[in-house]
Amino acid sequence: MSSEVARDSLLTRIDSFIGDELREVEKIFYRELDSWHPYISDILRHATRFRGKRLRPILLLLSAKSTGGINDNHRVLAAVVEMIHSATLIHDDVLDEAKTRRHIVTVNSRWNTETSVLFGDYLFTHSFHLASSLESTLACRLIGRATNVICEGELSQIHERGNCDLSEECYFKIIDRKTAELCAICCRLGAHYGQMDEGVVKSLADYGRSLGIAFQIADDVLDLVGNEHETGKSLGTDLKKKKMTLPLIRLLERCSEQDTARIRDLLARPDDETWPQLAHYLDQSDAIEYSQLRAGEYAADAARHLDKLPDSTAKQLLEDIVHFVTQRSF
Amino acid sequence: MSSEVARDSLLTRIDSFIGDELREVEKIFYRELDSWHPYISDILRHATRFRGKRLRPILLLLSAKSTGGINDNHRVLAAVVEMIHSATLIHDDVLDEAKTRRHIVTVNSRWNTETSVLFGDYLFTHSFHLASSLESTLACRLIGRATNVICEGELSQIHERGNCDLSEECYFKIIDRKTAELCAICCRLGAHYGQMDEGVVKSLADYGRSLGIAFQIADDVLDLVGNEHETGKSLGTDLKKKKMTLPLIRLLERCSEQDTARIRDLLARPDDETWPQLAHYLDQSDAIEYSQLRAGEYAADAARHLDKLPDSTAKQLLEDIVHFVTQRSF
Repeated sequence: MSSEVARDSLLTRIDSFIGDELREVEKIFYRELDSWHPYISDILRHATRFRGKRLRPILLLLSAKSTGGINDNHRVLAAVVEMIHSATLIHDDVLDEAKTRRHIVTVNSRWNTETSVLFGDYLFTHSFHLASSLESTLACRLIGRATNVICEGELSQIHERGNCDLSEECYFKIIDRKTAELCAICCRLGAHYGQMDEGVVKSLADYGRSLGIAFQIADDVLDLVGNEHETGKSLGTDLKKKKMTLPLIRLLERCSEQDTARIRDLLARPDDETWPQLAHYLDQSDAIEYSQLRAGEYAADAARHLDKLPDSTAKQLLEDIVHFVTQRSF
Repeated sequence: MSSEVARDSLLTRIDSFIGDELREVEKIFYRELDSWHPYISDILRHATRFRGKRLRPILLLLSAKSTGGINDNHRVLAAVVEMIHSATLIHDDVLDEAKTRRHIVTVNSRWNTETSVLFGDYLFTHSFHLASSLESTLACRLIGRATNVICEGELSQIHERGNCDLSEECYFKIIDRKTAELCAICCRLGAHYGQMDEGVVKSLADYGRSLGIAFQIADDVLDLVGNEHETGKSLGTDLKKKKMTLPLIRLLERCSEQDTARIRDLLARPDDETWPQLAHYLDQSDAIEYSQLRAGEYAADAARHLDKLPDSTAKQLLEDIVHFVTQRSF
C-alpha cells in the first residue's frame, strides 16, 4: 500500500470515528475568526484552504476520546490549537518566503508580507481570546506557555541559520520547541479536560512530544528527498534559508574531510544548483537513512507512551498516526 | 514653555507620583520576557530601548489610582499592555520597513524581518501568558478581544493603502481600532481591577478611547510636519506606505480640481520628492490646522469623561496627559 493510500485510509477511519466532532470544531473555528470586514473574510477563506490534515485537533480529540469522551471544552480547545498552528504556518511562510503550500499560493504571495504578518497576529489573538472563553485560566496558562516555547524554538532556529556546526543536540532542542511542544499540549489538553489522573495526562503529553519530534524529522527529510507533487511544497526550502536539519548534520559529521569543505561551501551560498549537487553527497551517505532511523525511534517511543491506556478505537488511531508519521512521503 | 519641556515636566510629575509602581511593572515585564537564550535576551534588551513614554502602563496605573489604589493585578496588567504595545510596534516596523524608532535602529534593521516577526510573536504570546496568571479569565477575555480589534484595524489600514478616496469616517474607524482600543482597555482594566462601579469604568474607558484617537491624529500630523530630530522617526513614512491620514484626506477634499489630480498623482507614486512637493500644498491648505482641531475635539471629549471622578492627583495627571497629546511635537 502506497503511503498516500495509507494516509487516505487512516483519515477515512478518523473521519468515521470523530468526523462529526471535527466538523463542530470547524464551526467554532470559523465563528471565532469571522469578521465584518470582507477583506479579512477573504484572507481567512484563502488561508484556511491549505490547513491540511488537521493533525493537532485530531490529536486533541483522540486524546480526549481515549480517556473518556469529548466535551465542549475539547471542541473549543481543538479550534484554539488549530488557530495557533495556522498562525505559525502563515508567519513561517513569511520567513521562508514560500510561494506555495499544499499546491496553493501562500498569503504572502497572493497579498503581501504585511498582510501575512497581521493575519498571523489576528489568528494568534483570536486563539487566546477563544481559550479565555473556558471557565478557568488553566487552558490560557498552558497555551500561553506552549506558545512562548514555540516562539523561542523558532527564534533559536533563525539564530542558528547558516551554522554548519549545529550539533544534533541543539537540533533536537529546536524541533522539540518549535514543533513537538504544540503536539504535546494538544494531547495534554485532550486528556486533562477529560479529567484523567495526572499519570495518564503525562503519558499522552509525552506521546504527543515524541510524535511531534518524529514528525519534524520526517518533514526535514522530505524537504530534501520528497516529491514536490506529493508534498505540495517547494523542495529544498530549508537549504535556501540555510536551515541545518538532521540529514545535513549527519552528512557533515560522516563525510570525508575533502567533502566537508565542498558541502559547507554549498550550504553557505545556496542557489538553484545547491539541491541537485547536494543530492549526490546525500546518495552516497547514510544521512537520510540515519534520520529516518531516528524518526523511527521517536515514533516507537510515542507508541510506548500509549501502553498505559486501555484498548479503544481512539488508542488504535493514535497508534496508527505514529506509523503514518514515519512512513509518510508528503 | 516648549512642548519638550512640558513633556519632561509632566513625566517628572508622573514619576514622582507612580514611579515606584512603574519600576515594579518594569520588573514584571523583564521577568516574564527573560529567556535562557542569549540571542533572545539581546533582542529584548535592544527592542525595549525604544519603548518610549510607557503611556499605556501609565494610563492603566493612573486609572487605578484615580479610582482607589494600585494592586498586584494592576501591576501585572500594566506589564501585559506594554508587551502588547511593544509587539505591535515591532510588527509595525516590519510593515513600514522603518529603519529607526526613537533614534535607535529597529529590530528589522539590526537583525532581519524574520527576527522581528518572531520576536513580535514572542511578545504577544508572553503578554497572554502573563495575563493568564490572574485569578479569573476576565482579563484574558478583555485583552483577547481588544487585540482582535487592533489586528482588524491594522488589517483594514493595509487594505486601504493607496485609496485616495478613503473617507474621514473610515479613517476614524481604523484609528479607533488600531490605536484607541488599547488605550481604552488600559483605562478599563485600571478602573475595573479597582472594583469601581460600571459607570466609572465606562467613563475611564471612554476617556482612553478619545485620548487614543487624539493621540493618533497628532501622530499622523507629526509624520507630515514633525521634526525628525524631535520625533526620532523618519518623516513621511505614511506617505511612502501610501497610508491615507486625516491631513491628506482633508487636503484632497478641499483643494481645487486641478490640484486634486496633481496631489493624487504624488500620493500614488511616492518617492523622496513626494514630501517636499506635498508640503507646498499642505502650506496653502487648512489640512494641518483642521486635523489639529479634530484632535483637540477628541482631547476635550477625553477630558469631559473625567468629570465624574473625584478630584485627585491621578485625575489631574490624566487631564494633563490630554493636554500633552494635543500639544506634542514628538
